[in-house]
Amino acid sequence: MLSPRLQLLRESLQKLLRRNAGNHVERLLVRTRAADVAVVMRFLDERQQGRVFDLLPDDDVRADTLAELDDHLVSDLIGHRSESELAPVIAAMSADDQADILALLPETLRTSLIDALRPADKEELEDLLHYDAETAGGIMSPEFFALPSSTAVSEAIQALQASDDVEMAFYIYVVNDPGHLVGVVSLRALVTHPPTATLESLMVSDVISVVTNTDQEEVARLAARYNLLAIPVVDEANSLVGIVTIDDVIDVIREEATEDILKMAGADETAYENHSVLRNFRTRAPWLFATWLGGLSASVLISAFEYQLQATVALAAFIPIVLGMGGNVGIQTATIIVRGLATGHVSEGVGLQYLWRETIIGVFLGILYGTLIGIYTAVAYGDSGSVFQLSLVVGLSVLASMASSAAVGAFTPLLFDRMRIDPAIATGPIVTTSVDVLGILVYFWTATLILGTPT
Amino acid sequence: MLSPRLQLLRESLQKLLRRNAGNHVERLLVRTRAADVAVVMRFLDERQQGRVFDLLPDDDVRADTLAELDDHLVSDLIGHRSESELAPVIAAMSADDQADILALLPETLRTSLIDALRPADKEELEDLLHYDAETAGGIMSPEFFALPSSTAVSEAIQALQASDDVEMAFYIYVVNDPGHLVGVVSLRALVTHPPTATLESLMVSDVISVVTNTDQEEVARLAARYNLLAIPVVDEANSLVGIVTIDDVIDVIREEATEDILKMAGADETAYENHSVLRNFRTRAPWLFATWLGGLSASVLISAFEYQLQATVALAAFIPIVLGMGGNVGIQTATIIVRGLATGHVSEGVGLQYLWRETIIGVFLGILYGTLIGIYTAVAYGDSGSVFQLSLVVGLSVLASMASSAAVGAFTPLLFDRMRIDPAIATGPIVTTSVDVLGILVYFWTATLILGTPT
Repeated sequence: MLSPRLQLLRESLQKLLRRNAGNHVERLLVRTRAADVAVVMRFLDERQQGRVFDLLPDDDVRADTLAELDDHLVSDLIGHRSESELAPVIAAMSADDQADILALLPETLRTSLIDALRPADKEELEDLLHYDAETAGGIMSPEFFALPSSTAVSEAIQALQASDDVEMAFYIYVVNDPGHLVGVVSLRALVTHPPTATLESLMVSDVISVVTNTDQEEVARLAARYNLLAIPVVDEANSLVGIVTIDDVIDVIREEATEDILKMAGADETAYENHSVLRNFRTRAPWLFATWLGGLSASVLISAFEYQLQATVALAAFIPIVLGMGGNVGIQTATIIVRGLATGHVSEGVGLQYLWRETIIGVFLGILYGTLIGIYTAVAYGDSGSVFQLSLVVGLSVLASMASSAAVGAFTPLLFDRMRIDPAIATGPIVTTSVDVLGILVYFWTATLILGTPT
Repeated sequence: MLSPRLQLLRESLQKLLRRNAGNHVERLLVRTRAADVAVVMRFLDERQQGRVFDLLPDDDVRADTLAELDDHLVSDLIGHRSESELAPVIAAMSADDQADILALLPETLRTSLIDALRPADKEELEDLLHYDAETAGGIMSPEFFALPSSTAVSEAIQALQASDDVEMAFYIYVVNDPGHLVGVVSLRALVTHPPTATLESLMVSDVISVVTNTDQEEVARLAARYNLLAIPVVDEANSLVGIVTIDDVIDVIREEATEDILKMAGADETAYENHSVLRNFRTRAPWLFATWLGGLSASVLISAFEYQLQATVALAAFIPIVLGMGGNVGIQTATIIVRGLATGHVSEGVGLQYLWRETIIGVFLGILYGTLIGIYTAVAYGDSGSVFQLSLVVGLSVLASMASSAAVGAFTPLLFDRMRIDPAIATGPIVTTSVDVLGILVYFWTATLILGTPT
């Protein structure tokens, strides 16, 4: 939901664009933050987006807007523009934003834009482009503030005042001669110590750092756990090569949460791309195949028990509730475990404990809902001869289906986590399919056991 | 999943605690960060948790550990301790942490701990306790750094050096005589301007601020969108009363994501409380009632069509796939819309557009899987007389069920959002129930239409 302020901005922009009132749009954009323009862009059509981009006050604002824009809008917006038009916009960005934006552009445009950069910037950028986008290297900024350990406090303050292109300098990193990270000094420590003290004397030497190939999720977890404003990134030789700042950490946390939620439901972020019904279809269709397979297996099993159905046609009426209750408990349980693994509440040491606990909860829930449906069956089929047996079959089956689904829902993500497979991806399909099969088996076995094999 | 380092810490701690090696535990804890202790506590039993808390080096570390601990562990850990034992720990905390921790304790203990504070701290805390926990007021810290607009840069730097209990001062807020917030100055601007300049001459006057009752989710969204390290909080009279710092923003983003994920599956954070199988049961049972009702409705409807089943018993075999495919597409769609509303990708202006788009995708997915199941039916029931009609019934029903479920899955959260009801809570149950009813109706109507009413 957009805030009323952004809602108003969206409506005003759309109205002015429809009226072709370029001057008014320009005046509105001067007063608007780049981050707000980026949000509102989502709700404009492609032509309007291009128009707004052209009417932005200058290339600095264009650079800021691009940096905040959703990935899939970037290529639509600038993928077909000329190098001469884009070069000054790209030049106005920080190196980590350059790397992100260029990765979204067509090969030839990317190459010519890189060539158009100043040699020093070009080198910095090319270093960054080597790293996988979802690692510390891929999200770090190479613009950090590092000084030798022998530097005096007064010199450090001077150096800080002289620097201007350093992104959010909250910490001064201390390096030794070969460039290895040996400590960190906060700005606060700097102003509260005598000017002649060396950085070595006031630095904290137990620095939390990550390596260039550390997964971005781990980087975010560390920043969140230790309340850090920036995390230094070192290469394999422990040389400081960049920092990940808190604003990028926040983006990672939000993205990963969205990704996990959508993955569990069998979709991904392309769900928000306006023009790609087809891509969306392609992402979601394979995931549904597991459900389809589950349904098919259920169908094969049910035909195998057709003689049982023929004898007691009322059994068909309870197939949905046996499978539905199992399916929902299974997904509840799987969601709890998957999220627990992501947040660190569930871990290897307590896996078995959770498996046991979740199964017990499944049994309790099964007793509750099995009893309820048993009572309903007894009432609804009161005039049938074998009403007692039928309600026993239905009640017990709901219980068994819920208990076994809870166990499967807890076991599957724990197993995948052990096998180092992303539990968010794999759990949904497996749980869905196995719950269908288990549910039908449990139901008709119970029926055969209690109602007997029809002759 | 815990990192190998934390996994090792957990194992060492458990081993030492089992051996009752208090000295070794103490030595291990001195070398460990409070945030790490807080994570590992999750995996200890209640007695071990108490032992670790007692063996922590001092009350400052105890305060830090408590501040980082999961809420449900706090009351187990200290809820039964004496005021004299806890008072120094509480006194060592910042006011916002005090408010959070005290809210988790029994009434009498809370009151006596508040009374034990120094009068100034007590007043500050009591102000904080008035605010709803999930608002800006509830998460803000009252320890910020504000100066009058006439202050010179040199005076501001001196004031900053003299202050010591200000939490993470990244910005200096500028206030006028009645204490109204009129501007903000970054530390960076301070060191790069002449010492005689006044704050008024270098402040940014277009400050992003929130009101004490702003929802914490909105606070987090603003901080993330504008890359802020802290957001000032004002009361209704625009007087500055506190700041929300970035570390608290990160906690909010993580909590809200976890909450949304669990809510959609019908659970909540109590899912991670070790000792409360019962509370967990109580949270999850009501949510499953919707599924139960859906299953029950399906059962009633199926018995209404029993004559149709009696004539073509094979129809029973496809009930699971018709409902399962509908259910999964419905949940996929609902998840996409619910998350889109939370992240600002879906909003009022584009609601209809998404409803339409999602329905179209549902139709496409339905055509794909309807055709597949139709072909399967034709092959599997090849020797039956009405095989063509049966496969047509099954295929069309899967198509219709998937298309209508996609529409319901998109419409429900959009409607709830308009009615200002949290779509994450309400969507799951409604979609589950209506998909079951719709699926059965569609299936048997199609069957009656194509196979005719049995005589």
